[in-house]
Amino acid sequence: MSPMVAPEKFFAERTSLMKASAIREILKWVAEGNVISFGGGMPDPSTFPVEEIGEILDAGLREEGDVILQYGTTEGLRGLREELVRFMAWRGVEVPGIDNLVVVSGSQQGLDMLGRVLIDEGDVILMELPTYLAAINAFQFYHPRFVGLRMDDEGIEMDALEETLKGLRAEGRRAKLLYTVPTCQNPAGITLSLDRRRRLMELASEHDLLVVEDDPYSFFTYEPVEIRHLKSLDGEGRVIYMSTFSKILSPGLRLGWIAADEGFIEKLVMAKQSMDLCTSPLVQYIAYGALRDGVIRRKLPESRELYRRKRDRMLAALERHMPEGCRWTRPIGGLFIFAWAPEGVDTGEMIMDSVRKHGVAYVPGRGFYVDGSGANTMRLNFTYPSMEQIDEGIERLGEAIEERLG
Amino acid sequence: MSPMVAPEKFFAERTSLMKASAIREILKWVAEGNVISFGGGMPDPSTFPVEEIGEILDAGLREEGDVILQYGTTEGLRGLREELVRFMAWRGVEVPGIDNLVVVSGSQQGLDMLGRVLIDEGDVILMELPTYLAAINAFQFYHPRFVGLRMDDEGIEMDALEETLKGLRAEGRRAKLLYTVPTCQNPAGITLSLDRRRRLMELASEHDLLVVEDDPYSFFTYEPVEIRHLKSLDGEGRVIYMSTFSKILSPGLRLGWIAADEGFIEKLVMAKQSMDLCTSPLVQYIAYGALRDGVIRRKLPESRELYRRKRDRMLAALERHMPEGCRWTRPIGGLFIFAWAPEGVDTGEMIMDSVRKHGVAYVPGRGFYVDGSGANTMRLNFTYPSMEQIDEGIERLGEAIEERLG
Repeated sequence: MSPMVAPEKFFAERTSLMKASAIREILKWVAEGNVISFGGGMPDPSTFPVEEIGEILDAGLREEGDVILQYGTTEGLRGLREELVRFMAWRGVEVPGIDNLVVVSGSQQGLDMLGRVLIDEGDVILMELPTYLAAINAFQFYHPRFVGLRMDDEGIEMDALEETLKGLRAEGRRAKLLYTVPTCQNPAGITLSLDRRRRLMELASEHDLLVVEDDPYSFFTYEPVEIRHLKSLDGEGRVIYMSTFSKILSPGLRLGWIAADEGFIEKLVMAKQSMDLCTSPLVQYIAYGALRDGVIRRKLPESRELYRRKRDRMLAALERHMPEGCRWTRPIGGLFIFAWAPEGVDTGEMIMDSVRKHGVAYVPGRGFYVDGSGANTMRLNFTYPSMEQIDEGIERLGEAIEERLG
Repeated sequence: MSPMVAPEKFFAERTSLMKASAIREILKWVAEGNVISFGGGMPDPSTFPVEEIGEILDAGLREEGDVILQYGTTEGLRGLREELVRFMAWRGVEVPGIDNLVVVSGSQQGLDMLGRVLIDEGDVILMELPTYLAAINAFQFYHPRFVGLRMDDEGIEMDALEETLKGLRAEGRRAKLLYTVPTCQNPAGITLSLDRRRRLMELASEHDLLVVEDDPYSFFTYEPVEIRHLKSLDGEGRVIYMSTFSKILSPGLRLGWIAADEGFIEKLVMAKQSMDLCTSPLVQYIAYGALRDGVIRRKLPESRELYRRKRDRMLAALERHMPEGCRWTRPIGGLFIFAWAPEGVDTGEMIMDSVRKHGVAYVPGRGFYVDGSGANTMRLNFTYPSMEQIDEGIERLGEAIEERLG
């Protein structure tokens, strides 16, 4: 094995509900091979523009080595932020200028920064049911009170949101922010409908709510849908937009960005200063070059097509192999399918047998629910495994559930 | 100007005592040129092994592109941690194995992680007077109670340390940790003597004190001294050792490491998980390659010689140009000289005139003192400016102080 290979890399996020010993046990099994993993949230490495990155770095080191190997500014390289303003405009979001952007060392740092700047102990934070596990983990550190919001196929149910906001108001309280992945959500693969996006912004205005729009996946839609970002529907500066280069370029860069009001960005920059001084200028230069040279725009249609085929392959395999009583989402994009085993099947209890006896891994879903529900759910990633692994792995998963059922 | 150049990059750490508006004003002046800055803590870019980094990346992308552009493990690339075990042994510190190491996204993240894992509100943290500003900033977020320790030419005064520890014990309290940069300190350039290192470890044992040994500078000693790291004197697992690639390879990588007991490293890894998932594997690969190929060991003597000459140049210039009543440290290594203007000169008040009228910048020293003293002190970096800038800048600084004196 190459000295660089990391067999432990199995879950993109370790679920906080699993014991370290259980995770180690599973990782050992995965490392020994023969386990097909739908557990991570990793892009297919064939989408990495390895050659282009090599050329960008070559030129960068030759022409700007003194700069990209030196300390950088906390807010991020000027050139990258300029490219990001253009890139976001292309995505339908007008950002006034580079002072509305801060570069972060991956979305995870962005989430931690938001927690640091926004969350005081006991603050009410609204989260989708289910929601991104690593956002729960990042915010948790700041001891908020999480309140979950029900979702259906069109995303957060607006009645539930309104009821929650009114309930809080009746108690003389308010929610500080709502965290949402409105497009091709992680983990559920759901996309918030346009009507609901408008309604959400109305309610946010009415109840003075901040909205964090986490948007790693809108680049990967596999149906002809038009996505209007919450940020582009925001006339009041209440949407904090965040995204990442992890899926459109490479997760190994650990690079993302946040767009928000200038005053708020200043606060984030202050926080980042004490968290890591700045994000690697060398890494920023790669993303700068990839945007400048159009590498990302050129690559996207190809990755999108690959992932569309993988999604379809997994949907077909689920159709073939899932036992009666199972259901799953049919996402228009993103990296994940979310599945429900029949009531009574605890996917957290099932995972060890699933890995050891059946040779297939997934992320048990309960960790994604801030209200502790979701015991019979699981998240399935379809972008990293090969077509053959998808077929074989879903068949194994079907067997694991069958066995559990009796 | 290149789109990558960051004129704002002026202080490695923004001093928390300066108003944002004042900093902006100073940055504007620096950006417009003609200001010589001793303010940052930046290495000379001529020490960056640009070509070697290019070659390492070339091979890395070709042979391991799938791995170094993908997500990595939170603890860091196995290959890098293996190389670090060897590298530390070469530096006189025996680390049992890779599970005693965690890779961090620069020392600043290491400090933030330590704060997160170790500091509860109100905990007593012992800090050198003066100490590294960014450590104060990182720890501050966790609301400790800082207690300052006096230093002389041999480092922390052991009587003062003992008195402090006994005083706390008499109150029924204890200090949780002592943060020290024992070798070629930032900002004071002082090195803790071997006798005091031994005594410090005795006192730590007696009072059950954790010790954070921050060691970015021991690679840069300009006199034939033998350095024994605190970590190598530690038989009880109470020293948490941290260092960085910023000065020995490149600060633009944002890469450092922490060595400690395995159980404690596990806690740090858990914290890092919610802070940034992992440090860029691509960046880690550069350091891995540079250690593996001996690039760092080969480069060190050359950088050391360059910095020795710059230190000597600055010491000579200070001798020539400083007004009567000034004094300064004569560091055996590191990046900084620390200077005292005559009592009554407030270097924080002087900085604007110094930049605008005299065209020279430094870091006012008060920010380095957790007890609010040090009004007449300043930190001078000698590694980044050229020889000519050192001569000219110190002459200007002398004039600025002269003017202030009367």
